[in-house]
Amino acid sequence: MELIANNRCFGGEQRRYRHTSTTLHCEMTFSLYLPPQALQGESVPVVYWLSGLTCTDENFVQKAGAQRYAAELGLIVVVPDTSPRGDGVADDRDGAYDLGLGAGFYVNATQAPWAHHYQMYDYVLRELPGILHHVAPQASAQASICGHSMGGHGALVLALRNPDAFRSVSAFAPIASPTRCPWGQKALRTYLGDDVEQWEEYDSSVLLARHGCALPILVDQGTADDFLAEQLCPEHLSAAAQESGAQLQLRMQPGYDHSYFFISSFIGEHLEFHAQHLRGATRV
Amino acid sequence: MELIANNRCFGGEQRRYRHTSTTLHCEMTFSLYLPPQALQGESVPVVYWLSGLTCTDENFVQKAGAQRYAAELGLIVVVPDTSPRGDGVADDRDGAYDLGLGAGFYVNATQAPWAHHYQMYDYVLRELPGILHHVAPQASAQASICGHSMGGHGALVLALRNPDAFRSVSAFAPIASPTRCPWGQKALRTYLGDDVEQWEEYDSSVLLARHGCALPILVDQGTADDFLAEQLCPEHLSAAAQESGAQLQLRMQPGYDHSYFFISSFIGEHLEFHAQHLRGATRV
Repeated sequence: MELIANNRCFGGEQRRYRHTSTTLHCEMTFSLYLPPQALQGESVPVVYWLSGLTCTDENFVQKAGAQRYAAELGLIVVVPDTSPRGDGVADDRDGAYDLGLGAGFYVNATQAPWAHHYQMYDYVLRELPGILHHVAPQASAQASICGHSMGGHGALVLALRNPDAFRSVSAFAPIASPTRCPWGQKALRTYLGDDVEQWEEYDSSVLLARHGCALPILVDQGTADDFLAEQLCPEHLSAAAQESGAQLQLRMQPGYDHSYFFISSFIGEHLEFHAQHLRGATRV
Repeated sequence: MELIANNRCFGGEQRRYRHTSTTLHCEMTFSLYLPPQALQGESVPVVYWLSGLTCTDENFVQKAGAQRYAAELGLIVVVPDTSPRGDGVADDRDGAYDLGLGAGFYVNATQAPWAHHYQMYDYVLRELPGILHHVAPQASAQASICGHSMGGHGALVLALRNPDAFRSVSAFAPIASPTRCPWGQKALRTYLGDDVEQWEEYDSSVLLARHGCALPILVDQGTADDFLAEQLCPEHLSAAAQESGAQLQLRMQPGYDHSYFFISSFIGEHLEFHAQHLRGATRV
């Protein structure tokens, strides 16, 4: 575990760590914001952020402006990378942006040559919390999760399948039903093989329709997002919530696109939403 | 004049333009944030932001998180590039980061081969306001200016030499006396020749000591900034303010470094400072 960067930010510390992942069998970096309250030794809750295609752990940290809100609300923010990394890690042979490096889709791959490294679901769910409590013992057991695009998909799937691990979940422009869009179908077929039933374990709309969800869910989607109609399809999530009676707040944001300018505009409201559920004693 | 990007952000628009500069004799890009008030047709004041070495017009826009405050306060924010650009523009022969492209130092160069393109002082002071009023007629005549590092130097020099053009000036970790530090000496000798008297017209500490300043000045400087002792030297600015009785508020910020994490932590206070002086009727 190596601290490779540490910048003071809004009275807290924006840190970056490098470590050897036993789940992913490679060296990984992740970013961590410690709010002032944590630096003073207070126990504070945690929000995990999962980024989208092509991102590393740095994009959100540099562009979302989340530190201000995390400092105000007293939240640790943990940001993993979006795939395993390194020379020995399988990648798309054509270097496509939507498969392989930077495109782990937060699944546990079962197919060669991916399975050895591409275990991002387990990495985020099981390995990262242990590492967090090692480097930041101020992190309380209360956690929420959010993400953008592919990371919105990841956040929803992780929360829907592990409702005891999180207090709330939110997403910006998530890939709402990867079994029904080109990005998702390509990734799920590659990482999981041809059995569509396996894919459905990573489809938040399918999971929500089948099992419902006791957690509060907040989703923001820009109406000027170029990927809205073909790849993101929030209508599947919306229908699944209606079917299962889940508490989904889906907000269509007029004129916003898929960029970090969209995320930065609403990340404050997402962190407030999580803070409310992390600090409150009750679940919806 | 070509609009090359437009992203909705905090209810306003983060725009990017490309244009042919008559001052710099090349194609330039600049960024422009229009707050919601401007989109509704209201006349709003303007803050110019000048970036530091190696930056383009995009770094501040993506990393500072300024849009939130600009939206709240009703400010247009204009961000030029840091030097002329293009294949025909002179650059340091060794590709140094602190000279040539990305390092215009906001001067009007007098030496060959720089003088034809490197006229950033005039570009920011004279050409850019005209362009702004063309693309955003909602921009009022009231303007303030701020910047970081080399851009902090630029902001201070422009304001000190043109107090009627601005209502207030602020800087993050400015190169406070370029005639007395390696970055400044290298650039000023290259762009202006060996006559040190010419350099002094671009040294905010010299200008402030000689002429004073009727404008309010706010400067933030991190104590953990790697460039503090050798390149930035805010003590010269401080001494000049004392000598001339100028109203300089110099704040040493414990533990902060030279990065955008520092800028993002305090940009809100800088924009509030400018908004107060832009909207107030009086000068200090």
